[in-house]
Amino acid sequence: MASSSLKAVQSVFKAMVSSKGFDRVLDKVKIISAGDGNCHAELVVGPEHKNKIATLHGGMTATLVDTLSTMGLLTHKVGVPGVTVDLHVSYMKAVADGETIVIDCSTLKAGRRLAFLSVEITKKQTGELVARGSHTKFIGS
Amino acid sequence: MASSSLKAVQSVFKAMVSSKGFDRVLDKVKIISAGDGNCHAELVVGPEHKNKIATLHGGMTATLVDTLSTMGLLTHKVGVPGVTVDLHVSYMKAVADGETIVIDCSTLKAGRRLAFLSVEITKKQTGELVARGSHTKFIGS
Amino acid sequence: MASSSLKAVQSVFKAMVSSKGFDRVLDKVKIISAGDGNCHAELVVGPEHKNKIATLHGGMTATLVDTLSTMGLLTHKVGVPGVTVDLHVSYMKAVADGETIVIDCSTLKAGRRLAFLSVEITKKQTGELVARGSHTKFIGS
Amino acid sequence: MASSSLKAVQSVFKAMVSSKGFDRVLDKVKIISAGDGNCHAELVVGPEHKNKIATLHGGMTATLVDTLSTMGLLTHKVGVPGVTVDLHVSYMKAVADGETIVIDCSTLKAGRRLAFLSVEITKKQTGELVARGSHTKFIGS
Repeated sequence: MASSSLKAVQSVFKAMVSSKGFDRVLDKVKIISAGDGNCHAELVVGPEHKNKIATLHGGMTATLVDTLSTMGLLTHKVGVPGVTVDLHVSYMKAVADGETIVIDCSTLKAGRRLAFLSVEITKKQTGELVARGSHTKFIGS
Repeated sequence: MASSSLKAVQSVFKAMVSSKGFDRVLDKVKIISAGDGNCHAELVVGPEHKNKIATLHGGMTATLVDTLSTMGLLTHKVGVPGVTVDLHVSYMKAVADGETIVIDCSTLKAGRRLAFLSVEITKKQTGELVARGSHTKFIGS
Repeated sequence: MASSSLKAVQSVFKAMVSSKGFDRVLDKVKIISAGDGNCHAELVVGPEHKNKIATLHGGMTATLVDTLSTMGLLTHKVGVPGVTVDLHVSYMKAVADGETIVIDCSTLKAGRRLAFLSVEITKKQTGELVARGSHTKFIGS
Repeated sequence: MASSSLKAVQSVFKAMVSSKGFDRVLDKVKIISAGDGNCHAELVVGPEHKNKIATLHGGMTATLVDTLSTMGLLTHKVGVPGVTVDLHVSYMKAVADGETIVIDCSTLKAGRRLAFLSVEITKKQTGELVARGSHTKFIGS
């Protein structure tokens, strides 16, 4: 049911980014597809996402990795958001204002206790890798 | 010259968080001391730092690790901000609205090409460890 | 020239694992293919690779990530081994004695200063993911 | 009871490194003290710990981080070895043959499900930081 998953995730995500919480920083992100533990999103990088040298801020990148991989996890059959244990990001390429980035998230494994999520962020126009993230979550009770 | 370092860093930081860039999310952070590669800061966690389950957002934590360790690096004799290569954060404890966290950043090593920074985030009242970060930056030319 | 790359890498690797250095622990590893920054290898896990609870040792897994991704990097056009900066491994599944694992290494990016390598280790029979590694190396002079 | 912890850990460690398993690569490591989740050990680096450029192998360093932090965890009141979830190591300085390194491991937190361990490896003579590791383990049942 990738189609219903997509609508459900878009609805949850819209509520999150419309809140006054930290996820408001993701309000320009568009979730394009989602289902089976995966989530595919896009963002046109703007001034509000930049650091002091005018490229995509590393904290914004880490936030994309954190929240969007969790959106993917919500569409996995385990169906829970979990809590973050470890987050690792390697930064490979700067992104300038106006460029569109693609955020691809996968659930590598989700067992009874732990979920392992991966994220690749690329430039839409060139396909160049911008960053690669690993996100480990505790999903037990 | 820890005292002049502190004033210089506070001034740089104020400019950053007053901008329209992503560092605006750190506008409530107070830098308490800085010098010799280190930076010590505090934040009273509020609604704007929270995730959907009402605790400190992992992306906000990663942003604190990223930006504040860079403030510390600016006070090291190498005196450059560098660009992020790897960022790793382990999350140990949730933080609720209203709690004050302490962010302690150290420059473990800064050579000609690479700088290795560490961050510990604790609760001010209890001393409990909230998160621990490693931040590797390229500082060559 | 994947074919000549493969022979060159197999020759370098054989010299390494035949030495008295730490790489001797990889002497049972077979490099199946290599070229363009990638390396694909296999290992039948035996008693000498195990931890105290009789599964593949995390240190052995980390050594596979470290050395075999470097073998891949040697076949990239940059053609240098570099030195390790950051190594991150997520462990997803235990491996028992007698099982064959597949180690797939890719060079995600290799610029003038830094190389970003990724490794996926899976079980040959089932395809299950055993571990996922990120390896950042300094390759400048 | 740091003293009894030390003897117990030394005994467990001796059995591990005397086995035919992977921990045999640690047979030259000496555990100096242990207790309350911590473990302090030393190693004179020899030819068997080296990589192809004659310095301490990154896989050996990762193995030290993995196994010795687990020895520390065994002396914590939780008293279990757990299984590794995430291992992250930053490499700061090469170590030559004949140098003595000090491995300092701490249990940062051990709850009902997860344990967070940290490791610092330094040169005994100069105190220079060689590597810094983070080790997350699942310790639930």
